[in-house]
Amino acid sequence: MSSSNKQAGSLNEKAGISSHEITNASAIIQIRNKRRQQPSAEELISGILSGNRTVLSRAITLIESTNPEHTEKANEVIKGCLPNANKSIRIGITGVPGVGKSTFIEAFGTFLTELGKKVAVLAVDPSSTISHGSILGDKTRMENLVKNENAFIRPSASGENLGGVARKTRETIILCEAAGFDTIIIETVGVGQSETAVHSMVDFFLLLKISGAGDELQGIKRGIMEMADAIVINKADGDNIYKANQAKAEFNRALHLFPPKKSNWLPKATTCSAITKEGISDVWNSILDYFEMTKETGFFQQKRNEQNQFWMIETINEQLKQNFYNQPEIISLLEQNKKAVQNNEISPFAAAQLLLNKYKKSL
Amino acid sequence: MSSSNKQAGSLNEKAGISSHEITNASAIIQIRNKRRQQPSAEELISGILSGNRTVLSRAITLIESTNPEHTEKANEVIKGCLPNANKSIRIGITGVPGVGKSTFIEAFGTFLTELGKKVAVLAVDPSSTISHGSILGDKTRMENLVKNENAFIRPSASGENLGGVARKTRETIILCEAAGFDTIIIETVGVGQSETAVHSMVDFFLLLKISGAGDELQGIKRGIMEMADAIVINKADGDNIYKANQAKAEFNRALHLFPPKKSNWLPKATTCSAITKEGISDVWNSILDYFEMTKETGFFQQKRNEQNQFWMIETINEQLKQNFYNQPEIISLLEQNKKAVQNNEISPFAAAQLLLNKYKKSL
Repeated sequence: MSSSNKQAGSLNEKAGISSHEITNASAIIQIRNKRRQQPSAEELISGILSGNRTVLSRAITLIESTNPEHTEKANEVIKGCLPNANKSIRIGITGVPGVGKSTFIEAFGTFLTELGKKVAVLAVDPSSTISHGSILGDKTRMENLVKNENAFIRPSASGENLGGVARKTRETIILCEAAGFDTIIIETVGVGQSETAVHSMVDFFLLLKISGAGDELQGIKRGIMEMADAIVINKADGDNIYKANQAKAEFNRALHLFPPKKSNWLPKATTCSAITKEGISDVWNSILDYFEMTKETGFFQQKRNEQNQFWMIETINEQLKQNFYNQPEIISLLEQNKKAVQNNEISPFAAAQLLLNKYKKSL
Repeated sequence: MSSSNKQAGSLNEKAGISSHEITNASAIIQIRNKRRQQPSAEELISGILSGNRTVLSRAITLIESTNPEHTEKANEVIKGCLPNANKSIRIGITGVPGVGKSTFIEAFGTFLTELGKKVAVLAVDPSSTISHGSILGDKTRMENLVKNENAFIRPSASGENLGGVARKTRETIILCEAAGFDTIIIETVGVGQSETAVHSMVDFFLLLKISGAGDELQGIKRGIMEMADAIVINKADGDNIYKANQAKAEFNRALHLFPPKKSNWLPKATTCSAITKEGISDVWNSILDYFEMTKETGFFQQKRNEQNQFWMIETINEQLKQNFYNQPEIISLLEQNKKAVQNNEISPFAAAQLLLNKYKKSL
């Protein structure tokens, strides 16, 4: 209501008509027209399938919308895209700030488009709401790729929690694939849990590192190294080449100590330079080897199936928890019980039971 | 009803009375008497607090019972024990089968009782239902400790799922502490997720290894090494001493590559022999150092608080999922949707929403 009044106000100024009745009526018509201008789900789907990037962007915005009214339409669009999705390869790229993720993706993505690939670059960065988009936010850091008509770059969806951000990215992949992008790169920061989320939506997971003084293995969580299908030591140029090669050797030794992967793939560490382009094609060849091997063994499809099941179950579990913990009665009772548990007045299990009983009654 | 009939039958045989009315009546009285013999929660609590091991055993059986009627009484007993609990130190011990966990615990536990400690040995082994108690099931493997009046040995609770088994062990700790046991040892197998569960209920986590041919780091999940506060290479006796020392050096190198722990404690690898007792006191001294340090920094109490919160939240989350996935309508619908997701007929997210809506309606 307030927004239609505002529009009425501005119309007033232009047209010089003072009658509220008339201005309101024109405002309503204007809004109606604007609503009509919103493409339908069918229009969005056919636009995406024809490879229209503007429509693709618009559909992603719809998916990212927190307005519950948009959910149904978003689901319709995704459903319409699904038969044409799943035909790309999905590569996750992680690394702590400073390893040169953007310059690497710029070089790697450009290399891929030169091979005739259509590349979509997405990001998962739950901190983007606070930091105003720490990764991919500044598109100028990929100035060539952003102008490249065979590339599509989209910053991270924003959101307070990782689950929501990851889910939106997961759905965006479907849309990009339906729009004909055959190589999806998903960037994430090398800290926290976002790696696990990205790992569960890609086929190949690449950890970007740089050589540094001191211990090469510090500073990155162990679990992330274990997830990696390849470790690429970036900035192997100029004075850095010697140190980068040392780091490569050290990582290769460390990778050998890891238990074998379910894919039977043996991850390797290589060096590259986003500036001299040295090693970029090696990264790609390694990825091709991986796909050849895992498609032959059937691991590729098996992993995708597992990922789909994972996302279904994750979404359910996440929602069950949200329903519980967002219940106003539960919020205050939980705080009380946390204190009681801390003071040994109640066991953690009895406290849990008490809360669950309360929740059951409130349904 | 069927059980009272059976009792009636056996009474019949003995007394030679054929009247159903009378036998049923005596059976009922007999059952009533038997029920009266069951100690009350108050009796159990006071028995535990006085250090009566028979009562302690009985109370643990009550906790382990899957009979829902016992739950309330079990909770009452736990509540009554809580003010006297939390005063022990809790040590988790893990290692793959063959490293000599039982002989180590026998030697280590005996050593502790000689220092005047009261030692309770528990186990978390979700496979015990199937394997009929693979760990601690055969008490004769700790033949001295089992006869030691300052030790209390209890095999793993049985159960199909780890969550339930772990929960029961977690509650058993409270009872043992209230009964005056000041050192709680929790044994678990070195495979699967049970380590994470045990890690979240102990103060100190010890990984038992033996030296072996080939790569020393293989065969144990990376994450378990990362959890360890100490690595003890067992069977460092006879011809094994040289190899054990080599393994010690290798583990110490590997431990150095790990990111620092939240406790700031630096885990070390040592050797020991459960046969010659060499190195047993070193293990204990290392544990004492750990407690001195973490009690000074406040980490000790902080970790316990976090563990309590963890168990409360875990129990809630586990129960929320069980309520959902055990709903008969959900079970069949889930299978349908898994297939639909696999065939790209529906996105994982839309499938999740569909299931959640169905569940909401069924409540």
